[in-house]
Amino acid sequence: MKRLSDFSWERYSALGEADKAECLSRPDGMPFHTIFAGQFGRAQLDRLCDAATQIRTIAKTRAGTEFLRGLLFHKRAMIYFTQPSSRTFLSFLSACQILGISTGEVRDASVSSEFKGESREDSIRTFSSYFDLIVMRTQEKGLAERMAWSLSQSKRPVPIVNAGSGKDQHPTQALLDIYTLRRSFERRGGLEGRTVVYVGDLARGRTVRSLARLLTNYAGIRHVFVAPPQLAIGDDVLAMVRAAGQEAVTSTDMAAWLPEADAVYMTRIQDEWDESAGESARIDTSRFKIGTDEMRRMRPGAILMHPLPRRDEIAPEVDSDPRAMYWRQVRNGMWIRTALIASTFDCLSRVGEYWRDNLQ
Amino acid sequence: MKRLSDFSWERYSALGEADKAECLSRPDGMPFHTIFAGQFGRAQLDRLCDAATQIRTIAKTRAGTEFLRGLLFHKRAMIYFTQPSSRTFLSFLSACQILGISTGEVRDASVSSEFKGESREDSIRTFSSYFDLIVMRTQEKGLAERMAWSLSQSKRPVPIVNAGSGKDQHPTQALLDIYTLRRSFERRGGLEGRTVVYVGDLARGRTVRSLARLLTNYAGIRHVFVAPPQLAIGDDVLAMVRAAGQEAVTSTDMAAWLPEADAVYMTRIQDEWDESAGESARIDTSRFKIGTDEMRRMRPGAILMHPLPRRDEIAPEVDSDPRAMYWRQVRNGMWIRTALIASTFDCLSRVGEYWRDNLQ
Amino acid sequence: MKRLSDFSWERYSALGEADKAECLSRPDGMPFHTIFAGQFGRAQLDRLCDAATQIRTIAKTRAGTEFLRGLLFHKRAMIYFTQPSSRTFLSFLSACQILGISTGEVRDASVSSEFKGESREDSIRTFSSYFDLIVMRTQEKGLAERMAWSLSQSKRPVPIVNAGSGKDQHPTQALLDIYTLRRSFERRGGLEGRTVVYVGDLARGRTVRSLARLLTNYAGIRHVFVAPPQLAIGDDVLAMVRAAGQEAVTSTDMAAWLPEADAVYMTRIQDEWDESAGESARIDTSRFKIGTDEMRRMRPGAILMHPLPRRDEIAPEVDSDPRAMYWRQVRNGMWIRTALIASTFDCLSRVGEYWRDNLQ
Repeated sequence: MKRLSDFSWERYSALGEADKAECLSRPDGMPFHTIFAGQFGRAQLDRLCDAATQIRTIAKTRAGTEFLRGLLFHKRAMIYFTQPSSRTFLSFLSACQILGISTGEVRDASVSSEFKGESREDSIRTFSSYFDLIVMRTQEKGLAERMAWSLSQSKRPVPIVNAGSGKDQHPTQALLDIYTLRRSFERRGGLEGRTVVYVGDLARGRTVRSLARLLTNYAGIRHVFVAPPQLAIGDDVLAMVRAAGQEAVTSTDMAAWLPEADAVYMTRIQDEWDESAGESARIDTSRFKIGTDEMRRMRPGAILMHPLPRRDEIAPEVDSDPRAMYWRQVRNGMWIRTALIASTFDCLSRVGEYWRDNLQ
Repeated sequence: MKRLSDFSWERYSALGEADKAECLSRPDGMPFHTIFAGQFGRAQLDRLCDAATQIRTIAKTRAGTEFLRGLLFHKRAMIYFTQPSSRTFLSFLSACQILGISTGEVRDASVSSEFKGESREDSIRTFSSYFDLIVMRTQEKGLAERMAWSLSQSKRPVPIVNAGSGKDQHPTQALLDIYTLRRSFERRGGLEGRTVVYVGDLARGRTVRSLARLLTNYAGIRHVFVAPPQLAIGDDVLAMVRAAGQEAVTSTDMAAWLPEADAVYMTRIQDEWDESAGESARIDTSRFKIGTDEMRRMRPGAILMHPLPRRDEIAPEVDSDPRAMYWRQVRNGMWIRTALIASTFDCLSRVGEYWRDNLQ
Repeated sequence: MKRLSDFSWERYSALGEADKAECLSRPDGMPFHTIFAGQFGRAQLDRLCDAATQIRTIAKTRAGTEFLRGLLFHKRAMIYFTQPSSRTFLSFLSACQILGISTGEVRDASVSSEFKGESREDSIRTFSSYFDLIVMRTQEKGLAERMAWSLSQSKRPVPIVNAGSGKDQHPTQALLDIYTLRRSFERRGGLEGRTVVYVGDLARGRTVRSLARLLTNYAGIRHVFVAPPQLAIGDDVLAMVRAAGQEAVTSTDMAAWLPEADAVYMTRIQDEWDESAGESARIDTSRFKIGTDEMRRMRPGAILMHPLPRRDEIAPEVDSDPRAMYWRQVRNGMWIRTALIASTFDCLSRVGEYWRDNLQ
């Protein structure tokens, strides 16, 4: 098995995705570091989703909550966010608290030492001295991966969880999206063969990129990418889907595809990534919004998802439609991150045992 | 019994205070949501004050501290403050920690998703996915109440505690003020029939408004509102006191009223609410300050209160006077908020049992 | 024994260091308040260093971690930083979490009440109402000491730990530096008689001042202060070292002294203390940096330390040299602060007992 600490940064960077995934994993195949969505194959996804469901069931009782908090009370985690995000931050914080893990945090680059000229590598290496896990969200592409490698060379090679790096990777969002899709269809024939329609800012949204990647683990998914021309999905994503043997369709006509969808995945126009001011605002997005009219075009058994936060792309009146899943996504996010952290510390067997002994 | 989830926002908003209070309560009459001071009648005040005293006594022993932390270790609270306030924030944080509740926090609107255009309702609904209780302080009048209603319509109708909304409501400050008054007079004939002299910025201070409201639960209180003319108490407060059958007096002469007071409640000029810059600074406040001379005019058994923070309206030399209660108010605030949160999770019976079994 | 509460501020301020240290201590000689490095004599340093080593050993097992967290689970600490510093902040946070202490924090003056005109004394007195310990870092020289005195006059005289005040004192950094030096030389003849070469911004760095002071507790240390002329060590430090009977040398030639050093203590140019913009940038610091060439000039058994954060004064290539101790300093800082806090709450005997019963 390939080990991360055996590679120089140059040789590691040149590896293909599968070899990188091996470097970032434990011998049992579950990730040690969670860096990019492609690390998760079907086996890992099933194991994490099952664990998330066991954990949420265990947490319904006081005794179960006590068990969960006793799993990792002796561990401490750093939640290091230099990009603002209450949602993802609090989701990870909740996951840690459920497992009894104490936390330290940075939620804003300016309160740190960095203004004194310290490099990010030094900052993160300092955190590894104090904590057993680092959950990080930063603007710089690839920083989480680089830190995982850097720490593997040190005496404190703690696991890293990428909570969103730059414009390209947000693996745990993809995990919660998969978990939500699985739960929505598990008693209705499963996720295989479904049509997933992604809508909105597909050029810049990292959630769509990661979700499409993970969906290639389920047979027969048809991926439909619907966006204004200026925000169309990148060719690399289309290539990745097709290389996995799945159908990838592009369109600018959301209304036409709504009746075909098993799942509609709405996204927000990510104007914080605009290269020039007001760039996004000039795009006509009126035909890429969901209101009650659009919900009428969708199948009764379809679901509507959104990674949140939303602006006007889903009208608040839609919230009470039983097919609206986005608030459930939030809750699922907490449980799947709890499962991921428990897995990172190799606790899933104990979780499974407790569930079988007490709740099955 | 009226239930919040049975009402549309428009119908709820049109209800009178008593009906609103019922919507916000549990069947046992104690609040589920804590939104405005008027929810607390004499029975609720007595129950909370007794609980606060039991809790502070229990917390004096290591075993008692362990019991308290075991009450709600399985619960998690969000402390959401978009208005800066270390004092109130830390008071609620302390209350949660005493009860074993893990916390997440937002202490500044700018670290949240909101800059991405998310509505406050969506933010708070997200928090309800992660937490079992939301304690909130915001600039917008009525937001806490609206969120309580909004969550009652959702699958996660968690309780809300209003830690201060806009310029009008700060119910837990009123609770700690009542608790302080009760404790100060409990071995000296009680709170009934006392003269309470409020001094300072009575136009804009929300603490005076809420305290006067709660004091109408005690028979025979005489309320004296002393302020510079530009900061005089609002007519609505005078009307509320008189409608409750109590005496309300207004004056601009603090010196004349000091010898009549059982309790003097000083307030700070709230210039953060100025409509134009420097508006408050032009008011002559020299005759509305307390120093050692003013303390000499007060009765030996009188007390001096202040919600803090203070600027120059109480001189530091006064701190060592045994009648200065404001530091005790801070401590009482922590205990009464602990009692309130324990009550919100329906734990007061267990607290009372422990106290009777171990400490009475 | 002198007691802090017996003195007025004026009389206390006029005391010599030894008398001040007595006022700040417990009857057993260990500090109650940790304000300045000079409070620690050899006996206190040995006791703390031994405790830090016991604690880190105990923490290697799950049962040991549970024991440590049970020591002070009933206590609560305020970490009050108005100067940004993630490293020191997280170090203290970690120390508290290891001991089970719940924490509240302020990491930025602007989120507090202070903008409303409250004095720092009032803020800190409020914290003492909620917490059992205050760890503080502020810009104002002497504030921690003044607060210790101020609280001693109140009903809640909680202990204060100075996490760095102004430009002059940073006692816990000195403790971790001493601990690092002790551990590095303990199996090689000890710390006595060693040559310590301090390099860099010696005029403004408070860590050098405090470390030199503590090193005078070890016989025969030779202190060599190497700096650009504009950043030379203050005469008061030279006088303090010589008054303790130790050799103090000044030099501008780092290269000449590297082969003589047992320990090289590098520091960063502290431009945040510049009196005029760009003042430091005009100083030639090229001969005061450590790279692999410089490491070759150092003895095999020497060590290289740095309080961090670093900029370019130590090249990253040096990190893998076994003599580079600065990452170990970070870890040692967490353990020594844990020992200090345990000591502040008089727990060192229990720690020692557990260690002897389970791990010796």
